[in-house]
Amino acid sequence: MEQSRALELVKPHLTESRYTHTIGVMETAIILAERFGEDKKKAEIAAVFHDYAKYRDKEQMRQLVRDDLPCKDILEYSSELLHAPCGAHYVEKELDIRDQEIIDAIKYHTTGRPNMSGLEKVIFLADYIEPNRQFPGVDEVRELAESNLDEAIIQMLENMISFLISKRQLLYPLTLETYNHLITHFEGSFDKE
Amino acid sequence: MEQSRALELVKPHLTESRYTHTIGVMETAIILAERFGEDKKKAEIAAVFHDYAKYRDKEQMRQLVRDDLPCKDILEYSSELLHAPCGAHYVEKELDIRDQEIIDAIKYHTTGRPNMSGLEKVIFLADYIEPNRQFPGVDEVRELAESNLDEAIIQMLENMISFLISKRQLLYPLTLETYNHLITHFEGSFDKE
Repeated sequence: MEQSRALELVKPHLTESRYTHTIGVMETAIILAERFGEDKKKAEIAAVFHDYAKYRDKEQMRQLVRDDLPCKDILEYSSELLHAPCGAHYVEKELDIRDQEIIDAIKYHTTGRPNMSGLEKVIFLADYIEPNRQFPGVDEVRELAESNLDEAIIQMLENMISFLISKRQLLYPLTLETYNHLITHFEGSFDKE
Repeated sequence: MEQSRALELVKPHLTESRYTHTIGVMETAIILAERFGEDKKKAEIAAVFHDYAKYRDKEQMRQLVRDDLPCKDILEYSSELLHAPCGAHYVEKELDIRDQEIIDAIKYHTTGRPNMSGLEKVIFLADYIEPNRQFPGVDEVRELAESNLDEAIIQMLENMISFLISKRQLLYPLTLETYNHLITHFEGSFDKE
């Protein structure tokens, strides 16, 4: 699918600022894919559609999870988690995008999962560091993303987990599993003690 | 069992500083049990024996978990987690302490678990705030423990999780489940946003 066609398809599903964010994720994902040897075209398409279901009706998404998706446990956590697995489902059914790597990159872009593919990591990270994002600590993650995908994601997860816990919000167990898996398998060296 | 007899039994299993810590946990647990309507005698005994297996051979404890305990997943995490479930097992087998509430308080004193009993909470918290402890943030937890057991434990878990993540150490999933469960079921009001 051409980029222009993909953007045309996603635009009606997004607010203006969410569309701007999506363009940022797309451009960042293409850069990261180039940098870390992933498929740029797949990164582009996954990025364009990563928030496809962001504004779908939440009760309909809950029903979809209950009826058709394996991730039932997500229903016990923030409704903000719904749009990733539901978006992957809608993109497949409504837009006939069948590439499993793209679908998985959309599916896990909010929570991560252990053993993420390179493409999943690119989308997960691009969503966090795209230029419009202004989280505390995002610049440190951007800097790490210049050279090391895993280290950037570990720092991103550290930021996410610390932020949620400090706000006394629920943390979805799969995100902790992602963190535990990455720090166990990370081959580089940490500066931290 | 008399307090003096219990202390006599545990002393050979501990270093001098760990024995001092154990006395601190015992005294704190009795105060907390009194404050929050739990059984003081059970709190005393659970506290005295909570670190019974702290210095047992780690390979023997791993073998015990592999052969006889349900918590196999603990083997993938810090070896510091072993002494709680193994200690509960040894206390039962070697000292013939059969009270299930005491055994569970020892078993979960390091990780917590969702739906902890009042006694489990008392021992979990006493281990963290006893007067010899000097963690960053411990005074805030001590203050909360003056009036609200759950709020103190939530703050304790927030400190524990943030500390481990900031040090890029593994976090045992059951501890996250404990945190998620408590913030979901907590009836008080948080000052935090």
